[in-house]
Amino acid sequence: MNQNYIIPNEWSIIEEGFHKENITASESIFSIGNGAMGQRANFEETYSGDTFQGSYIGGIYYPDKTRVGWWKNGYPEYFAKVLNAPNWIGINVNINGHPLDLNTCKVFNFERELDMKEGILYRSFIAELADGNQVKINTIRFLSIDINEVGAIKYSITPVNFSGEIEFIPYIDAGIVNDDSNYDEFFWKILQLEEGKNEAYILSKTYKTDFHVCTGMKVEFALNENKIDLPYESEIKEKSIAFKYKTHLKQGDTFTLFKYGGYTQSMNHLKEKLIFASEKVLQKASIIGFDDLIQKQKQAWAKIWETADIVIEGDVKAQQAIRFNIFQLNQTYLGEDSRLNIGPKGFTGEKYGGSTYWDTEAYCIPFYMSTKDKDVAKNLLLYRYYHLNKAIENAKKLGFKNGAALYPMVTMNGEECHNEWEITFEEIHRNGAMIYAIYNYVNYTNDFSYIPQYGMEVMIAVARFWQQRATFSKAKNKYVILGVTGPNEYENNVNNNWYTNYLAKWCIEYTLENLQILNNDYSEDYQKIISKTNFSQSDFDAMKEVAEKMYFPYSEEKGVFLQQDGFLDKELIPVDQLPKSERPINQKWSWDRILRSPYIKQADVLQGLYFFENKFDTKTIEEHFDFYEPLTVHESSLSPCVHSIIASKINRIDKAYEMYLRTARLDLDDYNHEVHEGLHITSMAGTWLSIVQGFGGMRNFEGILSFSPQIPKEWKAYSFKINFRGTTLKVFKDHKGSRFTNESDTPIDILVHGKKVIVNSEELIEI
Amino acid sequence: MNQNYIIPNEWSIIEEGFHKENITASESIFSIGNGAMGQRANFEETYSGDTFQGSYIGGIYYPDKTRVGWWKNGYPEYFAKVLNAPNWIGINVNINGHPLDLNTCKVFNFERELDMKEGILYRSFIAELADGNQVKINTIRFLSIDINEVGAIKYSITPVNFSGEIEFIPYIDAGIVNDDSNYDEFFWKILQLEEGKNEAYILSKTYKTDFHVCTGMKVEFALNENKIDLPYESEIKEKSIAFKYKTHLKQGDTFTLFKYGGYTQSMNHLKEKLIFASEKVLQKASIIGFDDLIQKQKQAWAKIWETADIVIEGDVKAQQAIRFNIFQLNQTYLGEDSRLNIGPKGFTGEKYGGSTYWDTEAYCIPFYMSTKDKDVAKNLLLYRYYHLNKAIENAKKLGFKNGAALYPMVTMNGEECHNEWEITFEEIHRNGAMIYAIYNYVNYTNDFSYIPQYGMEVMIAVARFWQQRATFSKAKNKYVILGVTGPNEYENNVNNNWYTNYLAKWCIEYTLENLQILNNDYSEDYQKIISKTNFSQSDFDAMKEVAEKMYFPYSEEKGVFLQQDGFLDKELIPVDQLPKSERPINQKWSWDRILRSPYIKQADVLQGLYFFENKFDTKTIEEHFDFYEPLTVHESSLSPCVHSIIASKINRIDKAYEMYLRTARLDLDDYNHEVHEGLHITSMAGTWLSIVQGFGGMRNFEGILSFSPQIPKEWKAYSFKINFRGTTLKVFKDHKGSRFTNESDTPIDILVHGKKVIVNSEELIEI
Repeated sequence: MNQNYIIPNEWSIIEEGFHKENITASESIFSIGNGAMGQRANFEETYSGDTFQGSYIGGIYYPDKTRVGWWKNGYPEYFAKVLNAPNWIGINVNINGHPLDLNTCKVFNFERELDMKEGILYRSFIAELADGNQVKINTIRFLSIDINEVGAIKYSITPVNFSGEIEFIPYIDAGIVNDDSNYDEFFWKILQLEEGKNEAYILSKTYKTDFHVCTGMKVEFALNENKIDLPYESEIKEKSIAFKYKTHLKQGDTFTLFKYGGYTQSMNHLKEKLIFASEKVLQKASIIGFDDLIQKQKQAWAKIWETADIVIEGDVKAQQAIRFNIFQLNQTYLGEDSRLNIGPKGFTGEKYGGSTYWDTEAYCIPFYMSTKDKDVAKNLLLYRYYHLNKAIENAKKLGFKNGAALYPMVTMNGEECHNEWEITFEEIHRNGAMIYAIYNYVNYTNDFSYIPQYGMEVMIAVARFWQQRATFSKAKNKYVILGVTGPNEYENNVNNNWYTNYLAKWCIEYTLENLQILNNDYSEDYQKIISKTNFSQSDFDAMKEVAEKMYFPYSEEKGVFLQQDGFLDKELIPVDQLPKSERPINQKWSWDRILRSPYIKQADVLQGLYFFENKFDTKTIEEHFDFYEPLTVHESSLSPCVHSIIASKINRIDKAYEMYLRTARLDLDDYNHEVHEGLHITSMAGTWLSIVQGFGGMRNFEGILSFSPQIPKEWKAYSFKINFRGTTLKVFKDHKGSRFTNESDTPIDILVHGKKVIVNSEELIEI
Repeated sequence: MNQNYIIPNEWSIIEEGFHKENITASESIFSIGNGAMGQRANFEETYSGDTFQGSYIGGIYYPDKTRVGWWKNGYPEYFAKVLNAPNWIGINVNINGHPLDLNTCKVFNFERELDMKEGILYRSFIAELADGNQVKINTIRFLSIDINEVGAIKYSITPVNFSGEIEFIPYIDAGIVNDDSNYDEFFWKILQLEEGKNEAYILSKTYKTDFHVCTGMKVEFALNENKIDLPYESEIKEKSIAFKYKTHLKQGDTFTLFKYGGYTQSMNHLKEKLIFASEKVLQKASIIGFDDLIQKQKQAWAKIWETADIVIEGDVKAQQAIRFNIFQLNQTYLGEDSRLNIGPKGFTGEKYGGSTYWDTEAYCIPFYMSTKDKDVAKNLLLYRYYHLNKAIENAKKLGFKNGAALYPMVTMNGEECHNEWEITFEEIHRNGAMIYAIYNYVNYTNDFSYIPQYGMEVMIAVARFWQQRATFSKAKNKYVILGVTGPNEYENNVNNNWYTNYLAKWCIEYTLENLQILNNDYSEDYQKIISKTNFSQSDFDAMKEVAEKMYFPYSEEKGVFLQQDGFLDKELIPVDQLPKSERPINQKWSWDRILRSPYIKQADVLQGLYFFENKFDTKTIEEHFDFYEPLTVHESSLSPCVHSIIASKINRIDKAYEMYLRTARLDLDDYNHEVHEGLHITSMAGTWLSIVQGFGGMRNFEGILSFSPQIPKEWKAYSFKINFRGTTLKVFKDHKGSRFTNESDTPIDILVHGKKVIVNSEELIEI
C-alpha cells in the first residue's frame, strides 16, 4: 500500500499513474455522494483485480445476525448494517470483441481527479489491449446535488492507433452482495425488471426491512459530440438488465455514452410508484442534459463552499486536506432530511454497520450549525426526537421505568443495533450527548423554541434515565454511577467515569433549569409536556437529589479529576515511553492488557472539559491536559481534534498543530492502513473544529461569539466563515493579526481575545 | 416439563409411565458412562418424537468457529466442543412390517431404571401398534467398566396377543450431527465401512482434529434364552451399516438380540489398527458373553461403591440424590487416563463445549482423592502438567514473558478455547487453582515427590504469571491486580478481587517455600528445575516483593475483606428483599444491571475462606458469611456447596442443610429447567463435599485428618468413607454421636471436634 500517492492540490484530489495496489484505497478516497446516496469510486467498466464495490442509499439498512459467544440478557436482536445497493454505474466495454479491463491491459497516462469545488469525479487513461490496440478513455461522473435521485456519467472512448468495433454494454444489476457478507445471505429480493427504449428499471426490496428501491438507467450517445441514435440488443437476466450497443469507430473518433442512473426509494415515494418515479426523474435529467446538470452541480457546490470553505495559505497539503474533509461531510449529509444522519463511514464503506453514533451530536452538529442554515442542525436534533419512543423502549428493556430513555449507541431506526454489551449497555454517556446537542443548538442559534416544542420531552426522558441509573453509595454518601464505559473505550465496566457523572449531573440540572423557564414563560407548552410525560414533583425531587449529591472522582495529590475510580492504581507510564514496536496498542496488545493499562483511546476527561470549558478556569484545563495527554494514544479518529482544540486554548500551538495533523490527512495519507475500508467521515468534523474552535478559538458560551485566533507557524494565513444567527462572519488570521468581515446586513458583537468588538455589516475589522 | 417424576429409591433412578414431555430430561438423567465414553439414555429403536441424541468419547473434540461481534486481540481462534460420536446402539424393530416407535404406539407399563449399584440401565414396556398387536419389550444396557471400549445391549421382544413377523435391524451410523450444530458443518469424515458375519465397522475421523475412531457392532440372537443363528441382509449406505434379521414369532415366545458395540480410537491405538482393535475387543466381549459381562460390571461398581458410597438413613430422596451424584462422577471419570478430565456436563450433553474448567481443581480433586487411590488425583494434576507448555504459550500471547503460564479457562487440549474476553482474559484466578490442587494433593496424600517431579515447574510458571500480572500502585503503595473477573462472574473487569489477590500471594509464597525445601532436601531435582525454568534470583526477588506488598481490599467499618475495590459503593440490598418475580436475575435482568448489582453468582470471598480456612479464625469466617451470604444468588451450580460447608463450619446446620438441598437434587428435580441439556457433573462433587467436609467436618490442614460431625435434623444417620494415606476410615453419625471405624491395617490419628483420637485397625470408636 502506497500511503503517499495523492497529489497535493488546493481544490482537487488527484491520483496519477495506475497502481493496482491503490485501487481499493482510491475507491474510498474518490468516493462521491449527494447526501441521499453515495458510492465508492469503482470503475464503470469491468475490473477483474482487487476491488471493493459499494453503492449506498441513505437510510436503507438490513438487520444482520448478532454474533455472540454467549448471549446476555438485553442484547439487541440484530446488528443493523448499511446495505450495498444495486449497481447503476456499470458500463462494460469491448474493443474488437476484447473486454476493456484495467487489470489485464497495459495502462498509460492514468489520471483520476475528484474536483471538490465542483463535486465531480474525472478519470482518463490510455489502455493498450493484448493486440496492441490503444484506446483513450475519459469519464466524468457525479451525483447530482440538485436532483438527488440522479447520477450521471459521461464515458468517452477514442481509438488511438486503430479503427475497429467498439461495444458499450451499460447495465444495472441488483445481484450485488455486501463486502462484509452475511454468511452468503442475500439482502435484495428482485420484484420487477422493466425495459424501455434505451432505459431500464429494476424494482427490488430488502428482505426483512422491506425497503423498496427502483434502480434505473437511461442512456444516450454521441459521436464526436454529436448526439446519435444506436440500435441495441437487450439482455434481461434474473437480477440485471444490460443493453449492447455496437459501433465501428475510426481512429481518432470519439464515441461517448451518457448514462443517467440512480435510485428512487420507498422512504420518498409510494412503493407502487417507484418505477414511474424513476422514469420521470431520469427523463428530467436527460432533458436538462449532461452539460447543464454539470453547471447546476457546480452552482450547488459553489453555494456549499460559500460558507463552508476554509482557506489555508502557505500549505497546499493542509488546504487540500481541510477541503477534503468539508467536501466529504457535505457529500454525506446535507441536512434536508431528518430521517437521515451521518454514518462514521458515510457512503464510502460498510464498517461499523449502523449509521448513527454520538459522533453526530458531539462533533458533526457544530460543523453543520456554523456552515449551514440552522434547520440542518435542527433536523439532526429531530432525528433523535423522532426516536424518543424507541429510546424509552430500549431503557425499559434494561429495567428502567417511568419513561426513562436510553438512546442507542449505534442505530439505523432508533433501535440499538450494536452487539457488544460493554458498549451498548455501558457506554451510556452518549445519552448525555443528546442533551448537550440541544444545549449547543439553542445556545448557538438562539432558537429557544426548540425546547418547548421538542427538546424538553427528550430532556426529561434522559434526565429520568440518569436519576435512575445513579445509585446511592452509603460508603461515599454520594450518588455514584457504576459499571460504565466512558468515551475512552480502552476501559470497560468502570465506576464513576468522571465524564459520565459530570454529564449526568449537568443533564439533570439543564433539564430542571429549562423546566423552570418553561413553567414561567411557556406555560401552555409546560402544561402539555408535564401531562404528556407524567412529570411529577417526585421526579423533580429525585433528580435534584441525584444532581446535588453526584460523586466525582478527584485526586487531591495530583489535583485532577480522575477518569474513573481507581485510575491512579494504574502504572502511569507516558505513551512516549512505550517502545514503538508496541504501538498502536490495539494491534499489538491483547485486550486485557489494554484494559488494565492507563492508555486512553480517545479524549475522556478532556472531552468533558471541552464541552464545559466555561465551567473551569484555564489553569485547571491546563493541569488536566498535562495529566491526560501523555497517556492518550489517540487510537480513535475522534480523539486528536479535542486535544488540538484544548491545546490551542492553553496556548500550546505547536501541540495543537501536531494533533491537528493527526486528524486532517488521516484518510488522504492513510495513517491507519485502513482507508480501503472507507473514510472516517464523522471525525472530519473534528478537523474542522480543530481549526475553527482550535486555532480560531471560536466559542459561544453565554450567548456571545468569541474568538482568540492563533496560527501555526507552518501556515501563512487561514480564513473561515461562520454562519451565526443570520450573520455570516469571515475570520482571517495571519502572522500579523486577525481580520473579521461581516458579510451580512446586521452588525454583530463579538469578543476577540476577550475584548468586545462590534463588526458592522460589510465591515472589515483588523486586530 | 414434569419436575418431580423420578421415583425415590435408595439405589436406583426410576421412571414409571411413559410421558413424552420427560423424554429429553430422562435422556440426561439416565445417561450411562464408563469414564472413557458415555451416552445419553436414547432409545435403541426409532423414536420420532422430541429427542436429543448423544454419544460421546472421552478426549475427542472439534474446534468450533468463534463467534464474536468485534474481534479483540488475543481471542482464542476456536471454541472447542465435545463431539457427538457415531451411534452404535441403534436397533430398529418392525412388527409385521410396522415400525416400533414409542411416539406413535400406545405404550403401557413403561418403566425405566438406572441401577446405580450395578451400573446398568433397564427399560421395559408393552407397546400396542395401530393394528392392536401388542409386544412386550425388555432392554438392558451398560457400558463396561472392565472393557472400556465396549457396551452391551440385550433387547428382548415378546408378542403378547398375536403371532407374527418380527424384524430386528441393528445398525451403526456415523452420519450424526451435534445438537448444537455448527452451521450444518459435518464433523466426521467416513474413511471405511467394513462388514463381517453379524458384525460391522465404520472407520471415521474428525475433520481438523484428525481423531480416528472405529465404531463397531457385533450381534447375536436367542429364542427363549437359546442361542440361535439367523440369516440376514446387510444394507451398507454412505455412512451407516445395518443388518436385517427377520423371524416368525409365536405368541409368548421371546426373541432376544444381543448387541455388543462401542469405539476404538486413535488416542489408544494406531490409526491403521483401529478396525482390527475393534474386531478383537468385540470378539472378546462376545466370548465372555452378556451374563458374565454383567457380573463383571456389578463387581466393578461394587468396588467403586466400597469407598465412594455415602449412606443416608431416614431420607430416601437424599440417599438417592447423593448416590446419583457419586455414580455420575464415576461414570464421567475413573481416573485412569491423565489425558482425560471432567467436563461440566460429562458425557450427558454438549453445553459448555470445552471439557475442562477449574471445577476439576477446586471441586473434583478432593472427591477423587478421598474415594479412590491417590493416582487418580495425580492423573488429574498431570493433565495440567502436560499442558504447561500450552499455558506458557497462552500467557505469551497476552504479553507475559519469561515462561509465565496462564492456564486456560476452558480447554480440551491445553489451549484456551472459550470466547468471552471477560472470562478468558480476566478470570485468571483459575491459574491459582492449579497450584491449590497441588497443595491439596500433597497435603492430603503426603506424596511430596509430586512437587520435585512435576509440580514445581507448574508452580514457578504460575508464580511468574502472578508476579507479572500484579502492578505497583503508587497511590496504594502496594501491588494491585487490575482488570479481573473473580469466581463471581456477575462482576467483570474489577480491580483487586480479594480472592484473586489472596490466591496470587499464596501461590507465590507456596512456590518460594517449596523451592526452599527442594533446595535443601532435593538438590538434584532443584538444580534440574532451576536450569530448565531459568529461575533466577531476580525472579525470586520480584515474586517475594509482590507477595509481601500485595494489596487486599478491606472495610474497617464492616470488618470484612471486600470482594473487590469499590464493592461498598453498591446498593447492598439482600437477595431476600428482591421480588421473586425478578429471580433468577440471570433470566430477568439485563446484563449491565446484574453487573452493577451487589449480587454474587457464586462464592467468591467465601471460596477463598473455604480454601484457606486454616488461616482465619472462625469469627472472621462467620462475619464474612453473614456479610456475603445474603447477597449471594447461587445462580451457579458450584456455589451452594461452598456456602453449605462454611455454614456447617460455623454451626449453622439448618442453613447448611438448606444449601445442601440446592445442590443435591439439582438435576433429579431439575431445579433450573435445563436438565434436558445434560447433567451438572462437576457440581456433583460439591454435593459430596457438602456432606464430607460440611456435615462431616472433615479437614486435613497441617497433615492431620479432623472431623466435627453434625447431622441435619431431617436425617436419622449418615455415613461415609475416606481413603486417607492408605487407611480407609468409615465415619458414621447419628443424633446420638459419631462412630469411626478403621477398615485398614494401620492405626490412624485423627481429631474429632478438636480432640485427638487414635483409631486402631479394624477398631470402631464411638464418640
